[in-house]
Amino acid sequence: MIDRGHHPIEPWRLRETRLQLDKLAQSESLFALSNGHIGLRGNLDEGEPYAIPGTYLNSFYEQRPLPYAEAGYGYPESGQTLVDVTNGKLIRLLVDDSPFDIRYGYLSHHERTLDFRTGLLERDVDWTSPGGKRIRVRSRRMVSLTQRAVAAIEYIVEPIDQPARFVIQSELVANETQPKLSDDPRVAAVLDNPLKPVSHDGGENGIVLIHRTTRSRQLMAAAMVHEVDTSARYALDRDVRENWARSTVICQLQPGETLRVVKYLAYGWSSLRTETAIRDQVAAALASARFSGWDGLTKQQTEFLDDFWDGADVEVHGHPELQQAVRFALFHVLQAGARAERRAIPSKGLTGAGYDGHTFWDTEGFVLPVLNYTMPGAAADALRWRHSILEQAKERAGVLGLRGAAFPWRTIRGQECSGYWPAGTAAFHINADIAEAVMRYHISTGDDEFLEEIGLELLVETARLWMSLGHHDRHGRWHLPGVTGPDEYSAVADDNVFTNLMAARNLRAAAAVAVAHPAKARELGVDREEEAGWRDAAAAVHIPYDEELGVHPQSEGFTGYAEWDFEAYKGKYPLMLHAPYFQLYRKQVIKQADLMLATYWCGDAFTAEEKARNFDYYERLTVRDSSLSACVQAVMAAEVGHLDLAYDYAYEAALIDMRNLHHNTGDGLHMASLAGAWTALVAGFGGLRERDGGLCFDPALPQGMSRLVFSIRWRGARLKVDITELEVNYTVHDGTDCSVSFMHAGEQVSVTPESPLRRPLGKRTPLLPRPSQPPGREPRSALAQNGLGG
Amino acid sequence: MIDRGHHPIEPWRLRETRLQLDKLAQSESLFALSNGHIGLRGNLDEGEPYAIPGTYLNSFYEQRPLPYAEAGYGYPESGQTLVDVTNGKLIRLLVDDSPFDIRYGYLSHHERTLDFRTGLLERDVDWTSPGGKRIRVRSRRMVSLTQRAVAAIEYIVEPIDQPARFVIQSELVANETQPKLSDDPRVAAVLDNPLKPVSHDGGENGIVLIHRTTRSRQLMAAAMVHEVDTSARYALDRDVRENWARSTVICQLQPGETLRVVKYLAYGWSSLRTETAIRDQVAAALASARFSGWDGLTKQQTEFLDDFWDGADVEVHGHPELQQAVRFALFHVLQAGARAERRAIPSKGLTGAGYDGHTFWDTEGFVLPVLNYTMPGAAADALRWRHSILEQAKERAGVLGLRGAAFPWRTIRGQECSGYWPAGTAAFHINADIAEAVMRYHISTGDDEFLEEIGLELLVETARLWMSLGHHDRHGRWHLPGVTGPDEYSAVADDNVFTNLMAARNLRAAAAVAVAHPAKARELGVDREEEAGWRDAAAAVHIPYDEELGVHPQSEGFTGYAEWDFEAYKGKYPLMLHAPYFQLYRKQVIKQADLMLATYWCGDAFTAEEKARNFDYYERLTVRDSSLSACVQAVMAAEVGHLDLAYDYAYEAALIDMRNLHHNTGDGLHMASLAGAWTALVAGFGGLRERDGGLCFDPALPQGMSRLVFSIRWRGARLKVDITELEVNYTVHDGTDCSVSFMHAGEQVSVTPESPLRRPLGKRTPLLPRPSQPPGREPRSALAQNGLGG
Repeated sequence: MIDRGHHPIEPWRLRETRLQLDKLAQSESLFALSNGHIGLRGNLDEGEPYAIPGTYLNSFYEQRPLPYAEAGYGYPESGQTLVDVTNGKLIRLLVDDSPFDIRYGYLSHHERTLDFRTGLLERDVDWTSPGGKRIRVRSRRMVSLTQRAVAAIEYIVEPIDQPARFVIQSELVANETQPKLSDDPRVAAVLDNPLKPVSHDGGENGIVLIHRTTRSRQLMAAAMVHEVDTSARYALDRDVRENWARSTVICQLQPGETLRVVKYLAYGWSSLRTETAIRDQVAAALASARFSGWDGLTKQQTEFLDDFWDGADVEVHGHPELQQAVRFALFHVLQAGARAERRAIPSKGLTGAGYDGHTFWDTEGFVLPVLNYTMPGAAADALRWRHSILEQAKERAGVLGLRGAAFPWRTIRGQECSGYWPAGTAAFHINADIAEAVMRYHISTGDDEFLEEIGLELLVETARLWMSLGHHDRHGRWHLPGVTGPDEYSAVADDNVFTNLMAARNLRAAAAVAVAHPAKARELGVDREEEAGWRDAAAAVHIPYDEELGVHPQSEGFTGYAEWDFEAYKGKYPLMLHAPYFQLYRKQVIKQADLMLATYWCGDAFTAEEKARNFDYYERLTVRDSSLSACVQAVMAAEVGHLDLAYDYAYEAALIDMRNLHHNTGDGLHMASLAGAWTALVAGFGGLRERDGGLCFDPALPQGMSRLVFSIRWRGARLKVDITELEVNYTVHDGTDCSVSFMHAGEQVSVTPESPLRRPLGKRTPLLPRPSQPPGREPRSALAQNGLGG
Repeated sequence: MIDRGHHPIEPWRLRETRLQLDKLAQSESLFALSNGHIGLRGNLDEGEPYAIPGTYLNSFYEQRPLPYAEAGYGYPESGQTLVDVTNGKLIRLLVDDSPFDIRYGYLSHHERTLDFRTGLLERDVDWTSPGGKRIRVRSRRMVSLTQRAVAAIEYIVEPIDQPARFVIQSELVANETQPKLSDDPRVAAVLDNPLKPVSHDGGENGIVLIHRTTRSRQLMAAAMVHEVDTSARYALDRDVRENWARSTVICQLQPGETLRVVKYLAYGWSSLRTETAIRDQVAAALASARFSGWDGLTKQQTEFLDDFWDGADVEVHGHPELQQAVRFALFHVLQAGARAERRAIPSKGLTGAGYDGHTFWDTEGFVLPVLNYTMPGAAADALRWRHSILEQAKERAGVLGLRGAAFPWRTIRGQECSGYWPAGTAAFHINADIAEAVMRYHISTGDDEFLEEIGLELLVETARLWMSLGHHDRHGRWHLPGVTGPDEYSAVADDNVFTNLMAARNLRAAAAVAVAHPAKARELGVDREEEAGWRDAAAAVHIPYDEELGVHPQSEGFTGYAEWDFEAYKGKYPLMLHAPYFQLYRKQVIKQADLMLATYWCGDAFTAEEKARNFDYYERLTVRDSSLSACVQAVMAAEVGHLDLAYDYAYEAALIDMRNLHHNTGDGLHMASLAGAWTALVAGFGGLRERDGGLCFDPALPQGMSRLVFSIRWRGARLKVDITELEVNYTVHDGTDCSVSFMHAGEQVSVTPESPLRRPLGKRTPLLPRPSQPPGREPRSALAQNGLGG
């Protein structure tokens, strides 16, 4: 856990006041910069020490074989791994004869700050070399949100009390040495020397290195150019080789003099375009960055972020640490999605290569709901990426003997990369999650063009998949046997409630949208009979229910299984590292919200009493070994009236990386959980839901949270919801002709810019007492850790 | 399919009258010789051409890593593969300048014969060299059933019409080149150069090569010595190197003269003993073989086989091909088990390295029932091997979080080698199958010492496993969720009827034997409470039943699944090579008898009507992609009255390898199916069962089978059962004081040597019409192929 003393609690930034060498991996992830296209881990400018060096380009991957002890039909033979590309953030420094390396000499001051409003990573160091020269180094690093191919670094050095000779070597380095991290299966497979040199060139206007991957045959270029600013005399030269390039600036500075170097970086890649085209592309990006200049780039960055925060900020009063964490979370979600532009949003964004850099259902299930309400264009782009891999998904369905599209459980470029089918191929719910994301986007934006363009096709092909997966029994009930739901401690079970409900929603949505867009539907080969078949299957869907217990079994038979021996495994989390899947699957133990997620996303399929009993039942079985759980538990805890518990889970979701709660933040940030922090607050305490195509709120605050304010975008307007202990205020802006209609606590209301709405806050009483969790898995108390007491 | 014209139908031997180069692999398996300790594939003496060279020592293996695309807790990291050891059957021949290679020159006559009564593989060849010299080569090869470490070859050459110079090179060759056979997962992983030289030595009394495996650190020795017999002058010399040794005999023969070389081979291996001990061991074996001489060895072999056939022969009248096939089958089962002596009996015996040379439940479930009644000592030995790996099985249970012993699904030396847990670890029924084999052996032999020595311990530790696997539900029913039964097209299902019934039998047997052997039981830590717990769980076992259909679902929910689209996959068998497990598991499609096996082995748990309905239901779903199915279907078809169908399945089980019905006989023979041929006849048409600790018969013959005669060993006596179309005669021999009591068609009877029993044959009428099979999987008609018509 991070010592909060070195990460002071501040509302708009994450600051590190001491460098902890044993926590480098975590800080590299926390301080990662990205725009969704380029990702730079928070490695030190000088490259070393490092835990995991990381420079990523969205979807730039290498293939690797997937081995099996016993092969099987339809197993993917080839995997995809995110590549650590040419490192352009490297700036080495020599002070007289000593390399600047904080492991040597004396570090009297170290501070790094990630500012959520400027989008800059700033560093300030006071260091005395082993040779006794004291210097100051300041740097600012950015990945531009406005110029997608561009990153930039401002680097300033100065001697403190004696003259010193400075040599700055600014570099591009391909094929950095990767550490062997661990045997944990979740850690990315490491590839050695993935980049083969294609060409290299250096001149006045920049240096460019072009490489290609061996098996995936992707081409990439990295380019840099520098501006030098100093009152002293300096020399500048260049060296360019196949796998590295170096610009060297040498000068002698007196105390009071500074040397400032601005490094502009441009990246580009393609699997289609030629070397020449890629070279020109990065040259153009570099010229454009230089034209904007450092000040221009930072100004654009701040403007972009101002606009984002204006419509997305969440204010949490009464808990400064959670306030900081939710902004940190939103900032990273923004970074992951802002400029992904028809590329996947990986489960770790571009902050690390954990899970091989793959994209899962995390994106549609957890990240897009947030982007949907804060940056709808990014949500649409992410769904356009899904649509771009539709052909692969249809092929995959064909291999499996199914119709429609079977989207990959994990992938970078569309091909299924899961090497364990019970927790991969069988988790078909991802298809319904994608369909749900389509509908969610459409409901909140009203973007009909999107439906015509890609939405209906996604709905139709996923609906066709469900029809080929399901069947009617002799009584006419419609079943989905042998599939895996969200909970990864259960697999290949019959009639998973979440999957069945979501499949039914998918079918209904496909039928409804097809009826609304008949021309497009016919183009996709949908006729009335097919629509009717979808509606009929949805209407006949079998939802198992345990009458005796009054709860829904997660899947058929689940509530009859033996309960996991929680006491015996008390200190052994995550369980998957201490027990075989065989045992986990056949017992009542839950990795992550599954039935509970069904009660959230498909809330209209459950009565309030059922929700309360289901929550009570599953809460006692859920160990949260997945980072996708706490946020859902927060939402449902709030709905059934356990507001304090919801607070605890909101805290857990938000702090997952800042406190390294899953012990693997070093491999990259948990985007779904960070997005889930927003969801925990907005859907949990704000009560945001989409029901029957409309917007609903039902606010309630936990004890200790004095006020919660958030904004969402709804059909072109920005709606602000301001909840205090006594009342809630709804206001709308973005023009005067905006009117937003929604339900407030069951009452249909409307808000316009002229007529905000105020309502007193109702009291929420839980039906059942606060449930306990499995021993050892009680959430931290948000109140006890509210940062006010330290 | 083998052209029967080249494999004439003869009652006591398998003869090949033409060499088919494209069927070499199959003939190498069919003509394999073994005694359960040494295995020699039927490769040609001169080594080439070959499909798969094979010389095996039971349990001599090398380790190999088991890779996983996604690792998991408890996955075995290391596999075991049977090694092709030093080839001693190699005898190369030069005729003048031409190497004897049947691919060159002209082969005017080729014949090989495997004689089931002499145990010899004989060869007779008439060949004209490319240089025009016509010669005759005769060889006889044996693996001694009486001298476990010994094999021998008699090799005779002669010129036919002109003088010729003959050079015979008799060799030992380590690390033969292995072919890459196919990507079929069932084909063994091939290891290159598994043997590292340790020492080599050659002298008057023999040549020995000693090698060691790299990772498993097993030591092996192969030795040879020769006798030369000719009226002509000859020269003899030796060359010995690390990886090969050669004895060369040169002589010039006139027409009418012969050169006869007898090669004695001895093999030994150990993972414990020293090089010196192993060297001495093979030297002793070699000396012993030489002392017996070729004639002595062949005489012993015939005597051994005479004794075996006296108690084990099955006469099938009316179907010469089936008659030949069942003797072929019994001969190979004998070879696999005769001298295994506390080593595993692999699923392919020592006839090939298919399935990596692993042992599965095939042994206890299919091979031991036959050995039990024909060679009980071999069955006891095989169970002693199981007992010898009890410690590994207990360790494995511990890793899985279970108690007792979890025997490996597939192994050579005891460690779990299954790399796909849903069809490996989860198939816990193997433990009940072992317990059943213990009880079956005890019932038929009355060997109480065996129970004290190892039987009770096997029962107790498997019972403990079941107790830790099962649980009681809130109504007190005892369940086994999430396990895999025999059918490999279903996996990880709840309350598999076969597994539940077998587990209950295991528990009851453990309790009963513990009560009967209290001292040993206390030594094993069993007390009254534990015994009571076993009985209670067995009594409360949940057996799902589909009231509406009147059949037992194979596992909970099975009969509610969609039926497999048999039409769509009509030409695509085995299905596992054309469809993903995901699809197979969630549909009604059955690879091999599962519920049907339950109705056979646990027959007292079903009424006759239930058996008839279950047979009818499952017969329509079973595709027999496993070789373990036809024999079980034969038994149950006979029981429910479909005698003709039983005949077809008996034929299929018996002919599996002679007709290469599964297209993989080349990788080794299917021991379980060959044993199953006996079971199909004896348990099917003889109606042999063990019920309540007693023996039962209920004979019935299919149309076209005029008579069936078989003998079994029962508690020291040999009981002969002679069934004709009208009556059945029971006689007993082996001493005058032998009395065998049993049930005949429900009537309690006794037979003594003085008073044989004769009963008229009842008529059996099926309750339901003969069911159909999945399209394309109808069995061949035994009658249509009865060999009489060719």
